Amino acid sequence: MFETTVRVQYFDTDKMMIVHHANYIRFFEIARTEYLRAEGMSYSEMEKEDFIMPVLSVSAEYKEPAVYDEEIVIGCRIAKISHASMEIEYEIRGKENGKFHAKGKSRHGFTNRALKPIPLKKKQPDIYEFLTRLYENEKD
Amino acid sequence: MFETTVRVQYFDTDKMMIVHHANYIRFFEIARTEYLRAEGMSYSEMEKEDFIMPVLSVSAEYKEPAVYDEEIVIGCRIAKISHASMEIEYEIRGKENGKFHAKGKSRHGFTNRALKPIPLKKKQPDIYEFLTRLYENEKD
Amino acid sequence: MFETTVRVQYFDTDKMMIVHHANYIRFFEIARTEYLRAEGMSYSEMEKEDFIMPVLSVSAEYKEPAVYDEEIVIGCRIAKISHASMEIEYEIRGKENGKFHAKGKSRHGFTNRALKPIPLKKKQPDIYEFLTRLYENEKD
Amino acid sequence: MFETTVRVQYFDTDKMMIVHHANYIRFFEIARTEYLRAEGMSYSEMEKEDFIMPVLSVSAEYKEPAVYDEEIVIGCRIAKISHASMEIEYEIRGKENGKFHAKGKSRHGFTNRALKPIPLKKKQPDIYEFLTRLYENEKD
Repeated sequence: MFETTVRVQYFDTDKMMIVHHANYIRFFEIARTEYLRAEGMSYSEMEKEDFIMPVLSVSAEYKEPAVYDEEIVIGCRIAKISHASMEIEYEIRGKENGKFHAKGKSRHGFTNRALKPIPLKKKQPDIYEFLTRLYENEKD
Repeated sequence: MFETTVRVQYFDTDKMMIVHHANYIRFFEIARTEYLRAEGMSYSEMEKEDFIMPVLSVSAEYKEPAVYDEEIVIGCRIAKISHASMEIEYEIRGKENGKFHAKGKSRHGFTNRALKPIPLKKKQPDIYEFLTRLYENEKD
Repeated sequence: MFETTVRVQYFDTDKMMIVHHANYIRFFEIARTEYLRAEGMSYSEMEKEDFIMPVLSVSAEYKEPAVYDEEIVIGCRIAKISHASMEIEYEIRGKENGKFHAKGKSRHGFTNRALKPIPLKKKQPDIYEFLTRLYENEKD
Repeated sequence: MFETTVRVQYFDTDKMMIVHHANYIRFFEIARTEYLRAEGMSYSEMEKEDFIMPVLSVSAEYKEPAVYDEEIVIGCRIAKISHASMEIEYEIRGKENGKFHAKGKSRHGFTNRALKPIPLKKKQPDIYEFLTRLYENEKD
């Protein structure tokens, strides 16, 4: 599982003195963005080829709350991939305290920037191969 | 289903020129807050009685994207309730265009402000009765 | 001064149990957007005419903090206008408690969507007249 | 000037396809937090000693817009300090492109967590000395 580390900022918290639940959805986004970049093809490069992956669905389960100033490790991996969409899984843990903060999933369609679905394998074989390789690596 | 209307602001959008997916989770929060208030017991009143409902899980499915300056109608209802938690369902539609933007769910525990679970029916019978009444009304 | 009312949400707060200071900048945006709409020409209509008003600078002074679930009244008015830019002033007060939460200013350029400055009076006389009228009304 | 690097995320952008202006205020917060930590006394440690620095005012001037996926370098330094408050200055530049994105200021009071002003030098001499040292270093 790919991992990236984020420091919880003041603006991430709410009056319960923990990270607001909606901000975990942003943490998921950071992780999948850094994952693609780390593997060699950033999302912004994909966009330049008129390829985007709009979020079709997202879900999160909250375990122990993360708090201000904590470093959290966001793990992510491609759990499923087809010609039309893929699913990413996430886990968020405290770097020092090892707490299991949250896990989640997001599902992404394969479209052009006008949000029209595209057959990825045919239209963007490089990207399809790249994403499939990431998926295969995670299965091992 | 209770409904409240929100205007999409510039800060809700992202560079895809649609509402960023994480912001729907905020829209859900607005709806459930306004629902409780409209029915007679605001969440801030509950907090004063040392009762909170932390989010245990949340999910959203995205249909047609909402855009800047659109008025969206966020519907919500209590779909399940037990002594320890409840589930709320949401639907977001365009007020003028009738587009089905998103639907979702959130599950909430019943705890005190220290996040310790409390047996709601026993410890806070007024709140339990209130939430159960909302649930029953929605079943009709 | 034009006024619009907003309910402080949970996601607006931080672990100091007050509204996070960056969110007042968002409140300013809500007010100026609603102001233009209420006066008859919404910002989204202006955008359709290839006219936007990017923020050149913003400032806020924080007085008494606003808290969760409070209704706040955001006032705004056009304080200055020229052919190339305008300045808007804001005041945020508690609706019930009358507290003076914050005041601020934003300065906006007049450009096309490609962020190229345009001589507003010449290129978009309708918008120029509209904004100038708002400015004149506030001077009285 | 202390510097920290942040990657612009999708959720930072708006439909103008640039970073939303309110998010620069969050970038300022990241920089001052990392500055204090890097110098040896994190803000969360200060909070534990019942010392906080609420934002009294903030301002930002926007130059060239920052865009998605760009790495930005946020510089900050303590520009003024007294017994009751301090002022921090910020500059945001593109790491690769060298663009000058924005500059700004924030002013902070010295209070306890109940937001009551405290005479810093007398009540928290360690923190006062620490902040004064940072200020002095920046003057050189």
